[in-house]
Formats: sequence, structure tokens, C-alpha cells
Amino acid sequence: MNFLEERIVKDGKVKPNNVLKVDSFLNHQMDISLMEEIGREFHRRFADKKVTKVLTIEASGIGIACFVAKEFGVPMVFAKKSHSINIDSDVYVAEVESFTHKNKNNVIVSKQFLNEGDRVLIIDDFLANGCALQGLMSIVSSAGASVEGIGIVIEKGFQIGGQIIRNLGVQLESLAIIDAMDAETGTITFREQ
Amino acid sequence: MNFLEERIVKDGKVKPNNVLKVDSFLNHQMDISLMEEIGREFHRRFADKKVTKVLTIEASGIGIACFVAKEFGVPMVFAKKSHSINIDSDVYVAEVESFTHKNKNNVIVSKQFLNEGDRVLIIDDFLANGCALQGLMSIVSSAGASVEGIGIVIEKGFQIGGQIIRNLGVQLESLAIIDAMDAETGTITFREQ
Repeated sequence: MNFLEERIVKDGKVKPNNVLKVDSFLNHQMDISLMEEIGREFHRRFADKKVTKVLTIEASGIGIACFVAKEFGVPMVFAKKSHSINIDSDVYVAEVESFTHKNKNNVIVSKQFLNEGDRVLIIDDFLANGCALQGLMSIVSSAGASVEGIGIVIEKGFQIGGQIIRNLGVQLESLAIIDAMDAETGTITFREQ
Repeated sequence: MNFLEERIVKDGKVKPNNVLKVDSFLNHQMDISLMEEIGREFHRRFADKKVTKVLTIEASGIGIACFVAKEFGVPMVFAKKSHSINIDSDVYVAEVESFTHKNKNNVIVSKQFLNEGDRVLIIDDFLANGCALQGLMSIVSSAGASVEGIGIVIEKGFQIGGQIIRNLGVQLESLAIIDAMDAETGTITFREQ
């Protein structure tokens, strides 16, 4: 097990309906030393890419993306979610339908902060069906920039998002891939990587 | 002028209706070196407090709070906003009315992550009327914890929030206090501190 899998086993809580609570260290309370270690690990895994920008989506991706951007020495941009139908012309927009919540959201990034030629590393805390991630990829493409890779802290390997992105030929690095969880026993099965 | 005021003059944009756009370095795209400098500066200003936790509110406070928490070597907790009226019993809730948007939001922190005896430093990017901040202070109080101080990146000194908090006897440190802005000339008047 790597450092993240060990932490998930120690402090994660498996709930019914394939819910994994990691809010004591990742997405409500944040362990800053762990964030720094995650930043260094993604930097190691994408060291050969000439990343010019780290992109994430509010809110829980922001902390992680900050420490990844710090390692690469580049700015971090976070996309905003908006229910509004009045969108300025100076932003890139992707309409994203949530498989889980069955609602639609706009994901928005100001045109100022993504440019043609930018080499973007996308970072997020969770990957399940990958709806938000597809929105971010669409925005990078609209900007004429390239997706150099995607770094995910925890991938739910039993949902479809990871497979879609790998099929698209994008380098996807998930620090932990969960293939199964059992709420009764609390056991978590990680994929061998 | 300090480092932040200099940056605001260089890259901030004054818009009509007292709007200051700092989204190229603070709250959409983030300059990570600046975040680190902000973290060190708040650590210096609150060095005599035995801070056990840094608290902020999603989304744009998260990045800044991470680097403050890093300096203190403590966890960061971010409060969540919720429109939902179905709130679990295991969270602290404050109902916050926005002076600007005239709507009500719940601000929520899980009871697990704020405890009696916690010495909390509250961090946020902007302070105007201070509605969200009052919600955070209420939550800290509900937990039986203490507010050791409040660190704000940019305070709008012509709005009431800062005065209310100072009247309450809380140590409020704003890295820049703007007393006036002029959208036509683009000039910003900082308060001498």
C-alpha cells in the first residue's frame, strides 16, 4: 500500500451505497502534510510534462491543486460551478450533467486564465463517473490548450469515469483506485497498480 | 505599500459599484508564491497565539487557508455552504443572511472537526459586510472553541464588517484595507496601518 492507501484504511469510513468518507483528512478537514505529499507525488508522476497550469474545480479540489501547482512552480486555476444561465462572453463554459444528482451545472473558467499553448494538468480529489472532469477537459480544449494529464486522489474503480478517460488516451494517475468497498465489514479493496 | 497592496495596484481591476477584481492572482487563478507569502505574513502576525486549527469557508478561502495552516503546522477546516434545510445533527450550523445578495445560506462544519478547547484562526479572502465571517464565529462559539484571531487578505474599509469585528474585541488583521476606489480613474486608496 502507498501512503494514501494507508491513510484511507486508517481514517476513511465506508458507508452504505459505496460512499467513502475521507472528510477527516481530505475534503472537509485537510491534513496539510498529506496535501504536500500528494503534491510531490503528482509532480513525480508527471515530471516529464512541461505543465504550465494546474486546473481544478471548486471546492474540495482547490487545496490539493495548490500543493501540486507549488511543486511545478505554475499558477493554479479553479473552475467555478454556476447554476446561472446568464454567462459572460469572456468565459469558457461546459454544461455538465451529474450522473449522481441528475442535475445540470455549468462549469466556468475565465478566458483570461487558459490560453492556446497552455499545457494543463487537471487535478481533483475524487473520480467516479467523471462528469465534472469531462467538463474541465472540454474547457481546456475550447481554450486551444492541451491536457497533459489528470491526477486524481481517489478513483472509484467500480464506476465508469476512469475507464472513459483511459480510453481517450489521457494519462490518468489515481493515487488510490478502489475496486470494492463493504460497508458492513468496513473493508476496502484497492486495485494493484 | 506592503507586498499585497503592491500586487493589488499592479494586477487588480477596479470596476463600478465598488467591485475589485483580483481574480488573476487571488480568487480564480492563484499565484502560489503569493499564497505562500500571505501564509508567512499571517503566521508572523498571529505568532503569539497557540493556534490549533485554521478555519475558512469554501471556495476562495481554501487556498489561502492551506498555506496559513502549513505555517502553523495545524489542520485546516473549511466550512461548507448549503441551501438545504435537511441538516444532519452531527454538524454545527449558522444561518447567514447575505447583505449583498439578500439570500440566506447555511454555513456548516462537522462537529468532529471543531472541539472544545480548539484555538481557531479564521481566514478569508475578502471582508465587506462580514456576514459569512459572523457565521464562522458563531460556529466556533457553538463548538466551545475560541476565535484567536481573524486574518483577511482584502478588507473593504468603507463597508461595515471590519468595524463590527474590531468592536467585538477580536484581533482582526487585514493585509490590505481599501478606504476608497474609483472605477473611472482606477485609483485605490489604502488605509495607513
